[in-house]
Amino acid sequence: MARFLSGDRGALARAISWAENADDRFQAALSGVYERVGRAVRVGVTGPPGAGKSTLVNEVARLLREMERTVGILAVDPSSPFTGGALLGDRIRMEERTLDPGVFIRSMASRGSHGGIARASVDACDMMDAWGLDEILIETVGVGQAEYDVVAAADTVVVVLCPGAGDGIQAMKSGLLEVADVLVVNKSDVSGAARLALDLEESVHIRATTRKHDEEKWVPPVVSCSAGTASGVDAVIEGVESHRRFLADGRLEGARGAKRVEQVQRVVTERLAEGVWDARGWRTEVEVLLGSGDTPYDVASQVLGEILGGIPVAGAPGARKEAGCS
Amino acid sequence: MARFLSGDRGALARAISWAENADDRFQAALSGVYERVGRAVRVGVTGPPGAGKSTLVNEVARLLREMERTVGILAVDPSSPFTGGALLGDRIRMEERTLDPGVFIRSMASRGSHGGIARASVDACDMMDAWGLDEILIETVGVGQAEYDVVAAADTVVVVLCPGAGDGIQAMKSGLLEVADVLVVNKSDVSGAARLALDLEESVHIRATTRKHDEEKWVPPVVSCSAGTASGVDAVIEGVESHRRFLADGRLEGARGAKRVEQVQRVVTERLAEGVWDARGWRTEVEVLLGSGDTPYDVASQVLGEILGGIPVAGAPGARKEAGCS
Repeated sequence: MARFLSGDRGALARAISWAENADDRFQAALSGVYERVGRAVRVGVTGPPGAGKSTLVNEVARLLREMERTVGILAVDPSSPFTGGALLGDRIRMEERTLDPGVFIRSMASRGSHGGIARASVDACDMMDAWGLDEILIETVGVGQAEYDVVAAADTVVVVLCPGAGDGIQAMKSGLLEVADVLVVNKSDVSGAARLALDLEESVHIRATTRKHDEEKWVPPVVSCSAGTASGVDAVIEGVESHRRFLADGRLEGARGAKRVEQVQRVVTERLAEGVWDARGWRTEVEVLLGSGDTPYDVASQVLGEILGGIPVAGAPGARKEAGCS
Repeated sequence: MARFLSGDRGALARAISWAENADDRFQAALSGVYERVGRAVRVGVTGPPGAGKSTLVNEVARLLREMERTVGILAVDPSSPFTGGALLGDRIRMEERTLDPGVFIRSMASRGSHGGIARASVDACDMMDAWGLDEILIETVGVGQAEYDVVAAADTVVVVLCPGAGDGIQAMKSGLLEVADVLVVNKSDVSGAARLALDLEESVHIRATTRKHDEEKWVPPVVSCSAGTASGVDAVIEGVESHRRFLADGRLEGARGAKRVEQVQRVVTERLAEGVWDARGWRTEVEVLLGSGDTPYDVASQVLGEILGGIPVAGAPGARKEAGCS
């Protein structure tokens, strides 16, 4: 990893590709630089299509560079059939940043459907972190569980909304408030922006006052900006930094520790699923068993029984799952 | 399963809940009725937010009832933070159908993030199928990989678009065309609908003429309708039925067989992931290992080594993954 540690961009890009492709070489690459992981700040940016996430990320990156912070941008497209084409256009608008040596931009699409994109995006952030970037912005272009899993790996989640995005906004708000550490009303110059910001403020306030007294929780600030005209983006950064100060009191380490456990679980799950399934000609055997009229569950039980032998796994033959038994 | 087989709605609802909650009782329930699975037609309906999917599903169900077909509706919300609130409102509009004994409606939200919703939605369709419903409509309110996995379990996928849904439509088209068996331009009375239909026709045509000559593939029809005014919905049903006729020539059985294998893989993966992870106090051990500075990958390797012993799994200690070696 000498080239990686000396700041070679190709070495960083290659390590991220290993993560993306579930290449066995990633494990050793990460081990070689892992003591350097943990210094970068990670900010997830998400929101519905058309809210202006890429424009905002571009402007935030520009301001962070003025503050002499180096910036990594990870643009994650979970291969949604609905967002397949959006990524390229967004990236083109971001091109001006790519000429800056203090900025590293990477797009990543998911492979398969085993949730590997959440695992790979954490890996990519770890490598960008170890490489020495100060700030990592993780942007997802889609809206769904897979996209949320990606940004949830960040220290701070910025949810970007804009007025006039249709009647879905009202419906979206309740769920959005739960994941947001900073709420951004983009396109603040568009009609309805002030109303949206007020609605969000009110919802945040209601949530804050109805929670239990013994919890000291973060109340997401609502920030209005117009990323397209580079207006108010400094307030977005201030919102992120205020959340960072909140986390500094021991909360950041706790949250990151829990996320590392989740990452272990993702790696274990992925390797069990792919390794076991691929290790033998299960597919042919499964087709034969299904052909005899067995249900997918009965076939799965037979496969699990053959794979695991005596290992206690819920659902395998002989395993019992009884809650409350000691 | 006597009550289930006699047409008891509560028994069907309970079986679907078992599937949803990964309850061990589902396996026996499915086995008891599995010989009856396979008669229903399954149609997935998806598309971006605001396209009018629920209204269309409601109208399609009404027309199918006029044709004296019984209808099951599975509305899947993959717990997206962005669609959390949309489901209820959509369902309320669908309420008029619930008074009809020939219609069974079920909403299902995902649990966890291991892709269990795709598995559970196939289970729910299998039970509705065995219960005796003629047509099953699977609707997802979100847009993302998880949502696509759900509708992909159907025999026919209907993608619903509408004009004026923002600049995302152009970008979406390429991906959407790949998953659609029938393309519906809803809100055909709205400005831009004819243009959208023409664009889609053109894209479909380009794809059809650039494919390899030895493939005989389905060319998705583009159907315009206005579900809100119940206009043109019969053409949507005709589009679905034309795809059904295309499938009848042996293709349906092949496609369903491949989907059953995928379902086995989902069950195996889910049980491996949950069973193995839950079987012991891995979480505590993992926290200790991470605390000593090991990477998530190195910790995962240790966990896998302990779990699997001699079973050959890629990524476990001692396993080697070398492409091209015989």
